[in-house]
Amino acid sequence: MSNGDCIFCQIAAGDAPANKIYEDDQVVAVLDINPVNPGHTLIIPKEHSVNILDAKDSTLMAMIAATKTVAKAVLTAFDEYDAFNLESNNGRIAGQIIPHTHWHIVPRKADDGFKHWPGKPYEEGQAEEIADKIKSQI
Amino acid sequence: MSNGDCIFCQIAAGDAPANKIYEDDQVVAVLDINPVNPGHTLIIPKEHSVNILDAKDSTLMAMIAATKTVAKAVLTAFDEYDAFNLESNNGRIAGQIIPHTHWHIVPRKADDGFKHWPGKPYEEGQAEEIADKIKSQI
Repeated sequence: MSNGDCIFCQIAAGDAPANKIYEDDQVVAVLDINPVNPGHTLIIPKEHSVNILDAKDSTLMAMIAATKTVAKAVLTAFDEYDAFNLESNNGRIAGQIIPHTHWHIVPRKADDGFKHWPGKPYEEGQAEEIADKIKSQI
Repeated sequence: MSNGDCIFCQIAAGDAPANKIYEDDQVVAVLDINPVNPGHTLIIPKEHSVNILDAKDSTLMAMIAATKTVAKAVLTAFDEYDAFNLESNNGRIAGQIIPHTHWHIVPRKADDGFKHWPGKPYEEGQAEEIADKIKSQI
């Protein structure tokens, strides 16, 4: 099922322009138009869903298989890359701009300077409490 | 196949301590000990691989199925969260610290202040050239 108003449905259907890297029956991969590093690629399923939580398992499995193929190709194509981040923003507050399931392959080189968000340890007893709270919802 | 020297193999086997949220026959989910936000969870497969590129498709499919279950539980358990980032660092330069395939579920709230890496548009003709270079490796 596609959604005619959705730009990623249009790109996946070939009805909107994009620099396509890869396509199979369930997925397309295209260059992000605002790359963090050149070669930054989006994996976009053809079937519309909003994010990982409502995407079908079969859609996500096609995305992960395409990710391996495309990430290997990106790293092979450029000598300066030998690592990559896979990133998926699920929900507006998490930075999801287009409400169609997708994720990012961001190739990385040693001197690109991008830093990860800092973490900090739990206080005594807090981790156990939080784990119990989450487990009660599974 | 597990690797006795690998801390994530030990955690997945229950031989090293962790705050476990979820377990099935292929995957465990545990709290990250240095959370970006409380409830930050790691999805760790039981079978050892280094990262997404050498993990079996069946391993990755089990990880993505577990991700849906665990992410829903994290968002349901805490009223302040209604979005999440899925992040996987593949390779040391991409920030991968433990060389055992895993990814992060980072729950997000409106005022947590974490920003994404900035992108910038390609110059004229550059995207087409890069897309061709990557496609030649697929």
